[in-house]
Amino acid sequence: MKSTSALLIDAGSAARFLFSANEASRNRALESIGRAVSEASAPVLAANAIDLAAARESGISAALLDRLMLDAGRLQKIADSLREVIALPDPLSEIRDIGERPNGLRVAKRRVPLGVLAVIYKARPNVTVEAASLAIKSGNAIVLRGGREALHSNAALVLAIRDGLQCASMPADCVQFVEDPSRQRVAELLGSRGKVDLAIARGGSELMAMVDACAQVPVMQHGQGITHVFVDKSADPMMAERIVLNAKTQRPGVCNALETLLVHQDLIASGALKAIAEALVRSRVELRADPEVAKALQRARIPCVAASEADFDTEFLALILAIRAVPSLDAALAHIAEHGTQHTASIVTADPKNAERFLREVDASCVLWNASTRFNDGGELGMGAEMGISTSKMHAFGPMGLRELTAEKFVVYGTGQVRR
Amino acid sequence: MKSTSALLIDAGSAARFLFSANEASRNRALESIGRAVSEASAPVLAANAIDLAAARESGISAALLDRLMLDAGRLQKIADSLREVIALPDPLSEIRDIGERPNGLRVAKRRVPLGVLAVIYKARPNVTVEAASLAIKSGNAIVLRGGREALHSNAALVLAIRDGLQCASMPADCVQFVEDPSRQRVAELLGSRGKVDLAIARGGSELMAMVDACAQVPVMQHGQGITHVFVDKSADPMMAERIVLNAKTQRPGVCNALETLLVHQDLIASGALKAIAEALVRSRVELRADPEVAKALQRARIPCVAASEADFDTEFLALILAIRAVPSLDAALAHIAEHGTQHTASIVTADPKNAERFLREVDASCVLWNASTRFNDGGELGMGAEMGISTSKMHAFGPMGLRELTAEKFVVYGTGQVRR
Repeated sequence: MKSTSALLIDAGSAARFLFSANEASRNRALESIGRAVSEASAPVLAANAIDLAAARESGISAALLDRLMLDAGRLQKIADSLREVIALPDPLSEIRDIGERPNGLRVAKRRVPLGVLAVIYKARPNVTVEAASLAIKSGNAIVLRGGREALHSNAALVLAIRDGLQCASMPADCVQFVEDPSRQRVAELLGSRGKVDLAIARGGSELMAMVDACAQVPVMQHGQGITHVFVDKSADPMMAERIVLNAKTQRPGVCNALETLLVHQDLIASGALKAIAEALVRSRVELRADPEVAKALQRARIPCVAASEADFDTEFLALILAIRAVPSLDAALAHIAEHGTQHTASIVTADPKNAERFLREVDASCVLWNASTRFNDGGELGMGAEMGISTSKMHAFGPMGLRELTAEKFVVYGTGQVRR
Repeated sequence: MKSTSALLIDAGSAARFLFSANEASRNRALESIGRAVSEASAPVLAANAIDLAAARESGISAALLDRLMLDAGRLQKIADSLREVIALPDPLSEIRDIGERPNGLRVAKRRVPLGVLAVIYKARPNVTVEAASLAIKSGNAIVLRGGREALHSNAALVLAIRDGLQCASMPADCVQFVEDPSRQRVAELLGSRGKVDLAIARGGSELMAMVDACAQVPVMQHGQGITHVFVDKSADPMMAERIVLNAKTQRPGVCNALETLLVHQDLIASGALKAIAEALVRSRVELRADPEVAKALQRARIPCVAASEADFDTEFLALILAIRAVPSLDAALAHIAEHGTQHTASIVTADPKNAERFLREVDASCVLWNASTRFNDGGELGMGAEMGISTSKMHAFGPMGLRELTAEKFVVYGTGQVRR
């Protein structure tokens, strides 16, 4: 097995190759990878069966088991996803004209790859192919370090990806896989300053703590999403119900799902809170309410439990919702500033002034007005596939698409200008 | 003296205040700072006299002494520079329309401050006011850690800046100064993950090594510039001479000054190399030449010394130039890939194809065609004042202006959309 340092030296060579690879050759490589993944169906599914057996033995949840599972249909969908990446506009063909200087210099900006990406992620094997394809499309070499549970599946997929690269006359080392699932390898990747241009960490609080403790390379953290909806007193009650229900229940296990609902206190008397709560309970959501809300729900015989302070700082990733009544927009903004994780926040209101203040003042990667928090997603925002959602503000804030895997250099066209 | 941790807590509070401060109030604060700096002339010059006396005693060079020195005229120029920052467009008023999604969602991006900046820099006291004003304009709190040599000057300037902030009803802690010049404080700033949103390190290789060893916060490194000019065989000889001379001698002590000249070997026979070398020697530049160039210069009785391999990896920051002859554009590109620091590279050529390849393939923050390397500068490229030049590709690559001190959040306007 290659050492991390050897792995990164080879990634560096592949990155230099990719720096000058044109759009046609990068797209050809993606096509070839799609074919290779499709043709590797038998070994990939056999490897996945090994992972599934081990996972069942270890007693992981049905939801996690489902995320890990591949079958012929899912694998074909993964192979087909390459075509979507091929269809995305080439970020490296983008040249932006900045303008002409008084001395006649023409200034432009042109996108360039970052170099070597290291992606640390968890059990879903489809991420392996997605991450590799976004890297190739953006001209970057990538080192993948997936979760222990999907080890055999990922190794088989990467073998196919590397076959595909070689068939397209690209260095196989454009995509490499860390087969050793130990934490030590993660620490080595995060500490390889100058050899990893960007690490992307997708995972839970344990991984984020590790990043905090030992990262010396630039890292984009896809951290937890304590996501808020504030239902203002002027909100259309039906719209509020629809948005809250969708944000909480459409896919509760993901980062842009709703975790804390703030309702204007006037909505208790108006009955709007009651309608929202009933809809949530019908969808089997456990409500954890602050005293004011709890009193109102109990009066209406809607089941709920008393929220602890910790509930307002928890990413449940499950059918559980914290609810708090607030007396004003200011109180809602203060709550989000204290408890939010700069991920996603939505306001439901008919008042444009309140909406504008909310959109301006909430410090989150995506702020929404009259829309579900579930839209904070690269595909939904029109960026195509994404590499995760950055909750740090450096380099990218929010969904990371192809552009976010590149930098811009200045290109200056002169006619002999010198500086006075 | 405040601990680093106390300093950063206060910076965090100030950053929250600035997050919602509108353009008018931020510009009013800058005006007020300009007035305060102007009025603090007596204490600032007295403090500078103390620094100058200590510097003279320690025997620093005349050039460094000049960088440190303030007088009434220079101080007024510093105070006046606030007006230029006020005149720059407000980065936080920028809203970019991204487009409408098929489901009717309108997507936009809006700039937000990063939060708390920490700037680590060297002896020039004007940087103190420049950095503080760019931070305020971009809505960020800033912690300044200047060099030991300018300690008293910087402390007096920051006192004036804080006075100015308070007169404009802004928290004084928007701008703080680390009065303890020990390395320990730099290490603490670089290690304060979650409290420093961006550290900007401007300095020599010693500071960069420290960043490499202990940075756990996002850092933009203004690293060394081993800057190249390649004079192609089709170059206009007069233009080449003018550009090389300007790049090397107009201000040799700065990062975008030329360090290595690559000449196409055909220019030896044509006499173009001789003309360039003569012009450089007339400007008292010491030439360190590879064997092929050295032989030609000796034949023409132009003084030069033999270049060592190390000369091609050295940022001289002085009237010294390494020269190498190369047989082709490919050889020039290979040399720059091996020895460049991703800072600045220029090609002088009449051949648009060679220019296009050079501009595309050189991996540097600024690539130029027929222009002096000295133009890699925020002001010269039309960005206004700059906070330094990033030689890393994360977040910003090249000169860092106001926009580079901000992030963009997604703003989504809906009419009740939920995700299917």
